[in-house]
Amino acid sequence: MLPTHVTLVDVGPRDGLQNEAAPVSAVTKTELVHRLQAAGLRQIEATSFVSPKWVPQMADATEVMAGIQRQPGVRYSVLTPNMKGFEGALAAGADEVVVFAAASEAFSQRNINCSITESIARFQPVVAAAHAHGMRVRAAVSCALGCPYQGEVPVDDVDDVVDRLLGIGCDHIGIADTIGVGTAGQVQRVMERALQRVPVAELSGHFHDTYGQALTNIHACLQLGVHTFDTSVAGLGGCPYAKGATGNVATEDVVYLLHGLGIATGIDLDALVDTADFISRALDRKPVSRVANALLATRPPAG
Amino acid sequence: MLPTHVTLVDVGPRDGLQNEAAPVSAVTKTELVHRLQAAGLRQIEATSFVSPKWVPQMADATEVMAGIQRQPGVRYSVLTPNMKGFEGALAAGADEVVVFAAASEAFSQRNINCSITESIARFQPVVAAAHAHGMRVRAAVSCALGCPYQGEVPVDDVDDVVDRLLGIGCDHIGIADTIGVGTAGQVQRVMERALQRVPVAELSGHFHDTYGQALTNIHACLQLGVHTFDTSVAGLGGCPYAKGATGNVATEDVVYLLHGLGIATGIDLDALVDTADFISRALDRKPVSRVANALLATRPPAG
Repeated sequence: MLPTHVTLVDVGPRDGLQNEAAPVSAVTKTELVHRLQAAGLRQIEATSFVSPKWVPQMADATEVMAGIQRQPGVRYSVLTPNMKGFEGALAAGADEVVVFAAASEAFSQRNINCSITESIARFQPVVAAAHAHGMRVRAAVSCALGCPYQGEVPVDDVDDVVDRLLGIGCDHIGIADTIGVGTAGQVQRVMERALQRVPVAELSGHFHDTYGQALTNIHACLQLGVHTFDTSVAGLGGCPYAKGATGNVATEDVVYLLHGLGIATGIDLDALVDTADFISRALDRKPVSRVANALLATRPPAG
Repeated sequence: MLPTHVTLVDVGPRDGLQNEAAPVSAVTKTELVHRLQAAGLRQIEATSFVSPKWVPQMADATEVMAGIQRQPGVRYSVLTPNMKGFEGALAAGADEVVVFAAASEAFSQRNINCSITESIARFQPVVAAAHAHGMRVRAAVSCALGCPYQGEVPVDDVDDVVDRLLGIGCDHIGIADTIGVGTAGQVQRVMERALQRVPVAELSGHFHDTYGQALTNIHACLQLGVHTFDTSVAGLGGCPYAKGATGNVATEDVVYLLHGLGIATGIDLDALVDTADFISRALDRKPVSRVANALLATRPPAG
């Protein structure tokens, strides 16, 4: 039995835009969030409070958060890798903070310059502080389906990181295929193991479309009852570990699949495609979404 | 249980190239077939014997077929809409002929200027002649998941066309989502009904990636035991009914999925990606395949 309702977390404003080389204004980012919530998204990863030295595109996190006209019922989350980031998130009034630990030691060392153990130790005070302030903590396990440096990642290693993230009190676990290499059977094996540890309502999948597998992987997760997924409007987000490849699965493509399966999302696909068109024009390119491009091609030309 | 082996029919040389506006030389087409068979494809839709008035790109069908150095074990099929086409296919030594009937009356009228009944009547002598010469007949039901003119297509209408194609003696039935609008649940409903009529070994799926659903639809078919699919190297093939949209599902993307699921195809993915690169360069564009682009991006630049 497939779920009757699926929650999509649009990570476009954060995970999507963070790797953009050209600056995107805080006004555009705020407008993107407004359009996403108007289209029916109820969870939006709005920005990240990280060092502008590492992620210059997110240097305006405070400004973006201040510019958002909050809509009741929408959860705004922000990435916070450490206590400094958490202080910014707290001041900005985020509902939820997001932390990332890798399932691959090689990736952890090369991506965030510390071991998996060190990264989780760094998150521990963040989780405690978030809970003390009534904020939720969403933890993601990156490279859960493969690593650009070590290749295969044993399921046991994913389980171990999940256990440790739950151990420090994280409320939600996301299984992330950071480089988009996973296929449906492998995804089901990892998710089945995670479901032995995490209630289905607090487990999500995060898939990249680098090898075109993201929708199929989501469908494979739905067959296990998993009903929360990260997606990115217009397919925003590159994949820095696979040059020239596409990034996050496009929210539009997932909504099309879900609605076709008779699964409710609360999202208006037309309004979402408008949003994809808006941000893609701002970035001077076409959406990386088959659904957005197919539907936009049927519209009369502007002007 | 998923199948242990899947057969892919590469339709790139025919369905893929037929809508190309710029001429593609017979030498390039022949070389494409050679590379596909070298990569492990065992069924190739090589060309079509149709009026050059309607499909100028296929005017060199005889030349292409004559240029192919046949490889034992490879089945070469050609599209033949009528007896005139069949005569060409026979003279060229095709192993199999392909006919198409629509499940949508509106599409049949607008695409081939006759009713479904008339089109099937036209195929009847083709089937008889093919069998008299020991050739197989593969029949495809187009618009089985939706029609650009009438919208939804009832499953009963698909069943009816399948029954009529079987009735005139067609050996194989392909269920084609010509405009790529179908999603996994709908595909399974149509395929389950077809499986009541057609042995699984003689049933195939033909999916377009216009809305990004093709791989998920193939995975949904695999779950029913269906183990033959049409695919197109480099994702060759536009979708003339959805401007700006992508066409046939790319063979590379399907092979990546299948191998990831532990399903044998007999195809060498690297050689296939080389083939995608070859034909895409000949057409002066990038492959419409996420796998090809991801893998090509990891290679050192040429020259």
